[in-house]
Amino acid sequence: MTITISIDCMGGDHGPSVTVPAAVSFLKSVSNAELILVGRSEIIQAELHKLKAESLSGISIVNATEVVTMDDPIEVALRRKKDSSMRVAINMVKEGRAQACVSAGNTGALMAVSRYLLKTLPGVDRPAICTILPNQKDGPTYMLDLGANVDCEPQHLHQFALMGSALVSAVEGKPRPTVGLLNIGEEDIKGNDLVKRTAELLRADHQRGVLNFYGNVEGNDIFEGTTDIVVCDGFVGNVVLKASEGVGRFVKNALTAEFKRNPVNMLGALIARGAIRAFSRRMNPSRYNGASLLGLRGLVFKSHGGENAFGFEWAIRRAYDAAHHDVLSRISRSIAELMPASESTPHVAVPAQGIPSEHKTA
Amino acid sequence: MTITISIDCMGGDHGPSVTVPAAVSFLKSVSNAELILVGRSEIIQAELHKLKAESLSGISIVNATEVVTMDDPIEVALRRKKDSSMRVAINMVKEGRAQACVSAGNTGALMAVSRYLLKTLPGVDRPAICTILPNQKDGPTYMLDLGANVDCEPQHLHQFALMGSALVSAVEGKPRPTVGLLNIGEEDIKGNDLVKRTAELLRADHQRGVLNFYGNVEGNDIFEGTTDIVVCDGFVGNVVLKASEGVGRFVKNALTAEFKRNPVNMLGALIARGAIRAFSRRMNPSRYNGASLLGLRGLVFKSHGGENAFGFEWAIRRAYDAAHHDVLSRISRSIAELMPASESTPHVAVPAQGIPSEHKTA
Repeated sequence: MTITISIDCMGGDHGPSVTVPAAVSFLKSVSNAELILVGRSEIIQAELHKLKAESLSGISIVNATEVVTMDDPIEVALRRKKDSSMRVAINMVKEGRAQACVSAGNTGALMAVSRYLLKTLPGVDRPAICTILPNQKDGPTYMLDLGANVDCEPQHLHQFALMGSALVSAVEGKPRPTVGLLNIGEEDIKGNDLVKRTAELLRADHQRGVLNFYGNVEGNDIFEGTTDIVVCDGFVGNVVLKASEGVGRFVKNALTAEFKRNPVNMLGALIARGAIRAFSRRMNPSRYNGASLLGLRGLVFKSHGGENAFGFEWAIRRAYDAAHHDVLSRISRSIAELMPASESTPHVAVPAQGIPSEHKTA
Repeated sequence: MTITISIDCMGGDHGPSVTVPAAVSFLKSVSNAELILVGRSEIIQAELHKLKAESLSGISIVNATEVVTMDDPIEVALRRKKDSSMRVAINMVKEGRAQACVSAGNTGALMAVSRYLLKTLPGVDRPAICTILPNQKDGPTYMLDLGANVDCEPQHLHQFALMGSALVSAVEGKPRPTVGLLNIGEEDIKGNDLVKRTAELLRADHQRGVLNFYGNVEGNDIFEGTTDIVVCDGFVGNVVLKASEGVGRFVKNALTAEFKRNPVNMLGALIARGAIRAFSRRMNPSRYNGASLLGLRGLVFKSHGGENAFGFEWAIRRAYDAAHHDVLSRISRSIAELMPASESTPHVAVPAQGIPSEHKTA
């Protein structure tokens, strides 16, 4: 089956100079994919021309006259720029012309426009942002939410756990992936009010056999790979993600500085360059680029705004994998199957087509 | 002036085999310090004997028959083990026989016993745990709270900011250290309800010239050294700290694995061993060991439970520095000066001598 993905070519810090080469490189590596490049067609054409890829099979261009900038308030993206590349690309998913959309545009706008156009899945109050992080077991740890929801109730974290579980089960082929609840200790008595009440819901699901709830996990467990999925509210997730990236950069810079300190160290680094390259490759955050906006009636993937073509191609790859593994219907089924049983928990009604206020969207 | 520090020698995973060598090593490096070693005197004597340090000047032993274990519930530490080394060591601070106390015992028990014996400073609702983290500017970033308070109100974060500022101003000799509020974006509209309301209090203090409030900072700013102090609630702080330690270990293991992969890499690592050693030294978490329990009427420092003697010695050093720079009266003055002006903000009355319930103490 051919998977069609719409690409918001104008989003991100670099726009078409990154998104178009990534799309071309991706298409060369995958046979059953089609990419719809959305944006200012003359600019996209020029980029394709540079790459001698005008006639590459599987590529088409859809013109969109406007661009959502990284600083545009959500309201501008939603109400004013109705012909933005972001909106047109998401709309293709809504109309069934694409199975997934990828954008490096600003997160708040992407979430708001996606939610406005696609609506949330039945049983989902709030979509969440989910990404993967590397762990010591050489596998990915899936973590959500990463900033879409900064003030959460237990039922939101509960839904994140179900959605994350359905995603991992589909993409990683694990029938019963483990779910950890991010906390400050392993014991049940630890944590704030939110996680304690969430743990009750997750334990109940575990007992019913619908979720493989491991229990509480701590910050270090994310990188130890203790569980397949780590669930937290968007405030905590966003801060942890950025702090981890900060540690990564700090370590890399410190190591580089030491290797450059004197000729002996430089010689050692030259001889061990294979090790350093392999290490850098494994630590390269671009390899983990591509967060999914889960809980919508369509697949939307978000690339970091500052990513290079290598990183953006990873985001396309994740979108492709999710579509290929039919993540959307798996999540819908998961949530639908569970909803009757868990409807006894109080659900906050969030209008699916409502415009999220700023404080709900990072 | 001689600084006297009481050491809970029995605390931590390793007890006297770590704490006593650390104390001896510290005393050899500092001339105007006295250490009171608290715990089972025959065991401490035996450790001193091994180190040929029985007659080292500046050391004295105070016998305490009980030990608070790492698993002891707070209630046991508070109500049952009244002759524990932890409690006797803290009591020396209360009685003015020591200017500071250091323990590697379990955090919840240490905070509860300290709070029970020493009480909080006037104007402080809740003590906080503050530690330093390394940053790219080669300086320390002070971060609080790290787990003492998992459900915070804005006035608590406000007090953390004032206490952190007084600490850094005293210990680092910076008259106006910068304070950042940990958030998911720099803009004022970002964040959850707690940080938005806290920002209002901090901005008001900034305008009155009593606090150098930088504004919001993100996770990565901790390690970039954007501000001298980063303030957050104890849940977020604890998770971020442990996640950062997790990234550090992950990176270290990945690098080691690559250097050991083949003889060429091993040769390079051998030649560049100076670089690798310097890097490991800088990244060694033991160098940043020693968190202060701020907001009490006495100085108490907490070492990681699993630290070695090198790390425990750093915790003693931090306690010594804090006492030497008269951190306690500086914090009292800071809080006292500010209280009349900030009393318009609603304060939650927390009984100073109350036993903190588990969910308040990590």
